[in-house]
Amino acid sequence: MAKQKPRTLSGFMELLPARQMQFERMAELLRRSYSLYGFTPLDTPIIEASEVLLAKAGGETEKQIYRFTKGDSDLSLRFDLTVPLAKYVALHYADLSFPFRRFQIGKVYRGERAQRGRFREFYQADIDVIGDGKLDIVNEAEIPAIIYQTFTSLGLKRFQIRVNNRKVLNGFYAMLGLTDKAGDVMRTVDKLPKIGADKVRELLMGEEIAVTGDQADEILSFISITGSNKEVLDSLEAYRGRHELFDTGLDELSTVVKYLGAFGVPEESFAVDLTIARGLDYYTGTVYETFMTDHPEIGSICSGGRYDNLAEYYTDKQLPGVGISIGLTRLFYVLEEQGYLNDALNTAPADVLILPMTEDLSPAIAFATRLRASGVRAQLYTEPKKFKQKMSYADKLGVPFAAFLGEDEIAQGRVSLKDMATGEQSLLPADQVMPAVLAALGEKDAIPPVREPDKD
Amino acid sequence: MAKQKPRTLSGFMELLPARQMQFERMAELLRRSYSLYGFTPLDTPIIEASEVLLAKAGGETEKQIYRFTKGDSDLSLRFDLTVPLAKYVALHYADLSFPFRRFQIGKVYRGERAQRGRFREFYQADIDVIGDGKLDIVNEAEIPAIIYQTFTSLGLKRFQIRVNNRKVLNGFYAMLGLTDKAGDVMRTVDKLPKIGADKVRELLMGEEIAVTGDQADEILSFISITGSNKEVLDSLEAYRGRHELFDTGLDELSTVVKYLGAFGVPEESFAVDLTIARGLDYYTGTVYETFMTDHPEIGSICSGGRYDNLAEYYTDKQLPGVGISIGLTRLFYVLEEQGYLNDALNTAPADVLILPMTEDLSPAIAFATRLRASGVRAQLYTEPKKFKQKMSYADKLGVPFAAFLGEDEIAQGRVSLKDMATGEQSLLPADQVMPAVLAALGEKDAIPPVREPDKD
Repeated sequence: MAKQKPRTLSGFMELLPARQMQFERMAELLRRSYSLYGFTPLDTPIIEASEVLLAKAGGETEKQIYRFTKGDSDLSLRFDLTVPLAKYVALHYADLSFPFRRFQIGKVYRGERAQRGRFREFYQADIDVIGDGKLDIVNEAEIPAIIYQTFTSLGLKRFQIRVNNRKVLNGFYAMLGLTDKAGDVMRTVDKLPKIGADKVRELLMGEEIAVTGDQADEILSFISITGSNKEVLDSLEAYRGRHELFDTGLDELSTVVKYLGAFGVPEESFAVDLTIARGLDYYTGTVYETFMTDHPEIGSICSGGRYDNLAEYYTDKQLPGVGISIGLTRLFYVLEEQGYLNDALNTAPADVLILPMTEDLSPAIAFATRLRASGVRAQLYTEPKKFKQKMSYADKLGVPFAAFLGEDEIAQGRVSLKDMATGEQSLLPADQVMPAVLAALGEKDAIPPVREPDKD
Repeated sequence: MAKQKPRTLSGFMELLPARQMQFERMAELLRRSYSLYGFTPLDTPIIEASEVLLAKAGGETEKQIYRFTKGDSDLSLRFDLTVPLAKYVALHYADLSFPFRRFQIGKVYRGERAQRGRFREFYQADIDVIGDGKLDIVNEAEIPAIIYQTFTSLGLKRFQIRVNNRKVLNGFYAMLGLTDKAGDVMRTVDKLPKIGADKVRELLMGEEIAVTGDQADEILSFISITGSNKEVLDSLEAYRGRHELFDTGLDELSTVVKYLGAFGVPEESFAVDLTIARGLDYYTGTVYETFMTDHPEIGSICSGGRYDNLAEYYTDKQLPGVGISIGLTRLFYVLEEQGYLNDALNTAPADVLILPMTEDLSPAIAFATRLRASGVRAQLYTEPKKFKQKMSYADKLGVPFAAFLGEDEIAQGRVSLKDMATGEQSLLPADQVMPAVLAALGEKDAIPPVREPDKD
């Protein structure tokens, strides 16, 4: 028979078993972390009616959409989890309680140009808190805690959450009379790290943007405010009273900083950063980006912010919210590239591989059944292979333990248990195997999926 | 602004939060159960190249495929998890260890006619064991244990796993010299429960199939073999020695039955059933179907079997395997329809809703942080609403506990904890809240997502 060459589309991540286990572990830790903060899991279709999904989209996004017809239906694959959330909340509004806190970890699709590290199918891991009409600032203050707890649980240590407030920015530009030019100014100011202050000043005062020299000075002085959170806030206090929006933003930023300690976020993991603006016009309050300290070139690994109107394309209801998103597939890819995936993680499909050495398999099977009943993942290996091949199989899977049941063991009600890491083998009463294995696995379970190389 | 009416496509399940939580719980129990048996999680793309995905497909299946072009690529959405597995194993053969045991829980797509209870996007939950060249019969004997353990962990009690062996069937028809007609005969015999023995006999002897009267008698006598597992096997022994394939099949079936006890499957949950054939020609050994005792009309809720050649469309390697599949979306739908979803399950997004009663929220936030650090899911409710509205929110979410922190509580280092189910409120030292909540939740965690109504 002629064979079809098997292949996986480029831009689609497909992992080998041990790596997949590592990915699952990360996804599980995200779910656990989001759940601790009272977010409920949601699942929405991957396919939506195009008119619904693309009510807002346009330009670059629309070109990337996987859109097609099936029968009479014009369908599209979701390209993020925010639009489906907006649809969901508008559609099920009457059945939801607000604030509505949901997390969703799911695949989204973008037909981007294929290149290394760019994915066309990728997981996003989003949380959002949606208010009905209003939403208290504490929800914004809580987000850095969730980011901190989530990445810490994965095993990341050297990262920083950078926070700004769009009201502070917009208020500042309003007090300079530059509201209409704020977008252009912020895009120019973004180039500061690359082109330096002189060049930015030149561009600001150029024909296109045309701010005055005084305005350029104010802008450059404003965005060069740095220091500890307290120092930055103190510097910002100097601007208080000149514009109401700015003052509101400063109050919000101060509230976010005030509660950091109570939320358990260490000072060094957090910075007020006036250069963070987030591209989308969508955001109206606190905005967040998260950087790996040793790898700023990767860009933000968790971003988001406060918005005033989640579902304006579907409903007249005012639905403000705050949310963040982790590009899980890309994060996993980057961590692997950097060698940050922790090989000490138990990625074997089973904790104990049972090797029966007798013809009647009943005792070995009964032993497997007991292990499973006590929560130990057990696999029976019954293929008729040589002992060496069986051990090689155990090695390749990376199982923590192999258990041998021969005539002697069975007669004594014992099991030979081999610790595959140390090579140590001990003859244990069958009922002592479970506690021994569970104790060893307990330690292994505490191993995070990410391990940053030691620094210094 | 003109609004786009939000809607979800028909045939696509989209659940409200409490129901979604119940679904997640079921999926989690499936993952846990599959993991206990040493299966490793796999994730493959939802989109595949059409030439790869449809290498084997044809006829009815092909019509249902979501197939489209993007740029120059002819793409299709997967319609099951078996073809992607075949592709995966053929593609990554050199990197896998055999037997390869994987589970996959993922969405698949079929453009079926929309009707109640039929889904176009639905979850399948599959396990497969793939051998390289050979695969021991014990893998087939283990499957009923996995089915039993999985459904039991969900909370199902009254179900029966029915098992047959294709070699027994094919061997039997071969000994009658009816190998070429076996397919037609089995399709006719399938109608027995509906049309009765006389009508089946008539059809068998009719022009189309044209078996002799003796053959028809043998067939009807064979398929009417029923009784306990031992009785059925004893009856089958009477046919031994007449055909090698039959004898092999009978040995296999006997092995499967022999190990049931050691695998922990109660006799009443299992039956050898000679009428189970499974439609697909694909199966070559043990075949499985699972029925809810009180709802045979639903059909099999978990089916599968042994096959000889997983990936023949992609590779020359002989890759025999055994697998089963649960149609999770349909099962969930059916359980809900039957009123079998357990409302006692904790489906709230948080275990404790914290209601701060002071202006400075630091103590309430610090309390939330402590709860979360000990694994309690905690939500802060800080919207400026009236007390009654806050309690109504707690009620609607169904949170097990509400915690109040006012000036008095904070001054005493205490928390007022209200058990929302009993209405009982107690003033506890803050550090006694965690153990109290965790103990109560531990009991709730043991509640299965499915509860069958009491019978008798």
